[in-house]
Amino acid sequence: MPAISTKGRLMPPSPIRKLVPFAEAAKKRGTQVIHLNIGQPDIATPEVALDAIRHLDRDVIEYSHSAGYESYRKGLADYYAGHGIRVTHEQIIITNGGSEALLFGMMSCFEPGDEVIIPEPYYANYNSFAVSAGVTVVPVRCTIDTGFALPAIADFEALITPRTKGILICNPGNPTGYLYSRAELETLRAIVLKHDLFLFADEVYREFCYDGARHVSALELDGLEQHAVLIDSVSKRYSMCGARVGAFITRNAELYATALKFAQARLSPPTFGQIASEAALRTPQSYFDDVTREYVQRRDILVDGLNSIAGVTCPKPKGAFYCVAELPIDDSDTFCQWLLEHFVHDGHTVMMAPATGFYANPESGRKQVRLAYVLEQGQLRLAVECLRHALAAYPGRSAVASAPQALVGGA
Amino acid sequence: MPAISTKGRLMPPSPIRKLVPFAEAAKKRGTQVIHLNIGQPDIATPEVALDAIRHLDRDVIEYSHSAGYESYRKGLADYYAGHGIRVTHEQIIITNGGSEALLFGMMSCFEPGDEVIIPEPYYANYNSFAVSAGVTVVPVRCTIDTGFALPAIADFEALITPRTKGILICNPGNPTGYLYSRAELETLRAIVLKHDLFLFADEVYREFCYDGARHVSALELDGLEQHAVLIDSVSKRYSMCGARVGAFITRNAELYATALKFAQARLSPPTFGQIASEAALRTPQSYFDDVTREYVQRRDILVDGLNSIAGVTCPKPKGAFYCVAELPIDDSDTFCQWLLEHFVHDGHTVMMAPATGFYANPESGRKQVRLAYVLEQGQLRLAVECLRHALAAYPGRSAVASAPQALVGGA
Repeated sequence: MPAISTKGRLMPPSPIRKLVPFAEAAKKRGTQVIHLNIGQPDIATPEVALDAIRHLDRDVIEYSHSAGYESYRKGLADYYAGHGIRVTHEQIIITNGGSEALLFGMMSCFEPGDEVIIPEPYYANYNSFAVSAGVTVVPVRCTIDTGFALPAIADFEALITPRTKGILICNPGNPTGYLYSRAELETLRAIVLKHDLFLFADEVYREFCYDGARHVSALELDGLEQHAVLIDSVSKRYSMCGARVGAFITRNAELYATALKFAQARLSPPTFGQIASEAALRTPQSYFDDVTREYVQRRDILVDGLNSIAGVTCPKPKGAFYCVAELPIDDSDTFCQWLLEHFVHDGHTVMMAPATGFYANPESGRKQVRLAYVLEQGQLRLAVECLRHALAAYPGRSAVASAPQALVGGA
Repeated sequence: MPAISTKGRLMPPSPIRKLVPFAEAAKKRGTQVIHLNIGQPDIATPEVALDAIRHLDRDVIEYSHSAGYESYRKGLADYYAGHGIRVTHEQIIITNGGSEALLFGMMSCFEPGDEVIIPEPYYANYNSFAVSAGVTVVPVRCTIDTGFALPAIADFEALITPRTKGILICNPGNPTGYLYSRAELETLRAIVLKHDLFLFADEVYREFCYDGARHVSALELDGLEQHAVLIDSVSKRYSMCGARVGAFITRNAELYATALKFAQARLSPPTFGQIASEAALRTPQSYFDDVTREYVQRRDILVDGLNSIAGVTCPKPKGAFYCVAELPIDDSDTFCQWLLEHFVHDGHTVMMAPATGFYANPESGRKQVRLAYVLEQGQLRLAVECLRHALAAYPGRSAVASAPQALVGGA
């Protein structure tokens, strides 16, 4: 047979989904699996979005404009204005989720062999888009003892080479939940301008900011008109992951025209998803207030619960709905699989994503896991108890996690 | 500002959509534009698909499996069985339209610099996916005087180099409407096996076969288990282009596992579109019978009408809903733009796709256009009359088309 491509061999399997067969086997044995492995919220999609779908008044489900419906893009521009981001509908391309926006961005901006600096741990699928575009990910290390704050400017500059072409951030962050301060973003702005780099900002968790913190967008930073690319998605905002509607946004006209050619090649983003997303723009503020209140409670239950387990370290994030915890274990891949294959507590077990997939070098995440607090509070309490018992029973337990627990409280 | 990538610069603009601004200007002047430029049918989407959307009974629009809903894939496997194609649901990945299936295939099978042979004229966006994957398209020329039949085996073999890794066909063909015979497919099979190549078969127009002709799938050919990839889509079958639901299908387990990693990277295909597509599997045969009858009538009106214009050559295709016509003109890009900018007949003009974008070398399509007969019969008659008057008035008219008209009738 003809050979598979190098890219195909290099493409990593999803660390979020790779344990799915073990979860399916556990369910077949009658074990209830608490899914904290994936950012699939149980929050209801806004009624206004579902109603638009249920009242569909079309006879032919046609292509839309390759950049998406103009009416939706105009509505989105208004939405951004409400968040302090000034863009026009002609600076927005609607995409098949944030994923396609990232792919368009990487394909449009980077040559094969170019380097993109990404604070790690980072969203695992960034590796996949980098492989697709032939781009090299250069990680800049964030550590659990600072709660995964942005590294110092010197750490970035030490990594910059003639091939460095961009920086990619996720804010608030998946997997850490870290929310960048304005000062941190100004640091990034300075690096980007000094070295003439693209700045990709994945801001799909914009609405999920806690404890009174305000989100600052990369598009609010002055002087980055030619450099900043905003990656967005309705998936989490409206708990509508399956709509597959995202956005690629830039004020750089040449880059916009380039990305639009990639958009034309795949004809159009999904019509049904756009109808739901345009309607979702009318979601009342009370929906977000309720969701935020719920996530804060969930976060506190999960993170406080984790930190109450001997040897576990978990900074409390200010955004998104993930956290990264360090566990007293030998190997997070082995532990997560063991939970599904060999552990049951009161009929339940927990599925998590090993953090090995969120680091450029898997060793860095060997004792860490990512947890998504996307389930209701009772399930999260149960998950914490499962983990408490599991860590006591796990044969590969190590004495203590490598980070000192005393640093956790204030992170 | 940082520079745009080489791929971004090489990516061609859509020849099907590049004249859109001129069409919009014509409409603003009050001219009715008859859109034969794009394969967007006016045929109604099956009620059974729209009903499934209108009766949506979900509270959360979740991700699906990265390969698509299992129930939909099982239903699709039954659909294929009904077309003589034996595949299981574990050989199917649901994609964001046929476009994404092609991208997954190219990324999984080909190295940058590998060569893929494509009979030309070919669907323009194949160039775009090739640019994305860094693949070189090597055209093998089909000519209008044979009605765009498959070239001789010697023509293929003359093009094969150590970098040749695959052959891509569209059957029935966009833009020519050509339907490959079983003998032609057996020819391809022999080349593929002899040179150990992948065979990509874009069969999204499977249902659109006329004059009693039967479609033969690449997956019906013996011995190609490791070589054949089927690219499919619901867009045309159910007049549901905006659903963005396609499929990547192969019996090659290693290739399937590789493509699935690309699918995992973008999380899932669209949920709404899959719901509509799964329901559409219950579309009654009478729908297809009615649609086929309608397209045959449309084809005959358009193709016979075109051939009745002095100097115009248009083979009558046996499949899909496109045709390529050779016109007595200097330049199809200029002519198509002129139609939108400077021509009106009884308040109407015609929008077509210049064939320059459907050839590796634009010169080959300089006198040709692609027309999609996706509008109702009255509009097609009007389009023919518009073209008759336009060709008489066009300043860049040449004496005769380059192909002798006598050859047209039997094509």
